[in-house]
Amino acid sequence: LSGVTAEVRRRRRGRPAGVSVTREKILTNARELFARNGIDKTSIRAVAAAADVDPALVHHYYGTKEQLFAAAIDLPIDPEEVLAPLWETPAEQLGDALVRLVLPLWDSPVGSGFIATIRSLMGDSAVNLPRSYLQEVITVRIASRVDNPPGSGKIRAQYVASQLIGVVMARYILALDPFKSLSVDQIAETIGPTLQCYLTGPPPGLPSR
Amino acid sequence: LSGVTAEVRRRRRGRPAGVSVTREKILTNARELFARNGIDKTSIRAVAAAADVDPALVHHYYGTKEQLFAAAIDLPIDPEEVLAPLWETPAEQLGDALVRLVLPLWDSPVGSGFIATIRSLMGDSAVNLPRSYLQEVITVRIASRVDNPPGSGKIRAQYVASQLIGVVMARYILALDPFKSLSVDQIAETIGPTLQCYLTGPPPGLPSR
Repeated sequence: LSGVTAEVRRRRRGRPAGVSVTREKILTNARELFARNGIDKTSIRAVAAAADVDPALVHHYYGTKEQLFAAAIDLPIDPEEVLAPLWETPAEQLGDALVRLVLPLWDSPVGSGFIATIRSLMGDSAVNLPRSYLQEVITVRIASRVDNPPGSGKIRAQYVASQLIGVVMARYILALDPFKSLSVDQIAETIGPTLQCYLTGPPPGLPSR
Repeated sequence: LSGVTAEVRRRRRGRPAGVSVTREKILTNARELFARNGIDKTSIRAVAAAADVDPALVHHYYGTKEQLFAAAIDLPIDPEEVLAPLWETPAEQLGDALVRLVLPLWDSPVGSGFIATIRSLMGDSAVNLPRSYLQEVITVRIASRVDNPPGSGKIRAQYVASQLIGVVMARYILALDPFKSLSVDQIAETIGPTLQCYLTGPPPGLPSR
């Protein structure tokens, strides 16, 4: 991630104080339009019109629409740059590559800050109570059914939790299109085998403690 | 879920107005203790002491500690009752059974109310902006790499998103123990093949539209 950090530093240094009002106005309007209409239906031209500036100025300050989006949501990394290695990864290795790309982002200082923000927005109880129930009741009950080899049951159950939480987020909270329109049968057909593999398939690695 | 709804109705009817202050005091103290110490380290006895009532009264009003927990977080279903079918499902069929148990809960009126609450807590932008990026940028780019058969790429990419979002939630936001202590290598080894299967494995069912 050192490339990312350097890029952030470069941009901060390169921002003259005089234009900051215009830049802020562009970002505010971009954020509003992106939130209301999505990325696809928001054009650089529309953002420029809303901010009452020339489209060329928006391009000049922020680059592509995706880069403007990243700036508008105050993402201190350039997603294009971060995701670039993926476009050279063969399709047969994308699964592994995605995990190894995404998790370190959350382990970085930027990621940690973002996590702290999410957790404070959610409030302690909203995090602690479901965690407690998942960890101390559901995990324990499921773990005892699939604890083979002994000691693997909890991690097996928590991999299952990870996939189920993600499906609930994608289907109900983010309501990703077209994902949200899948039937329960279709989802069961695709992720049922995943969960089964976590529960009774090859033993997962365990934390070294 | 009609059994669950009936159970809720039965309980509401059965609550005499005179004891509601005591009951509320028990719930408030339970909620605080559960949030602070987790379910394991909170006893019915400790809740009773904090609420200044007899432990037998807590049992009488709320049943088991898990049922008290459900009442404290205002869960209008009894998790014991909902999860009961799982304990009779053979371990080899738990994967499929879990999907078919969990998703309909979120499709129910209770689930929809809960989703509305989460979405309003998060705010429109916090939902719309990441959705827009996932849906219109990441999904589209990944989809074009794995669109086989044609038309399946977006759903393949969104299944991947579902597993990755869930891992991030489990590892960083909920910080499930012991899950949070796994290394990136260990997680990649276990969920890499899952993601790969979603990307280039058997074609998933597509929404019928």
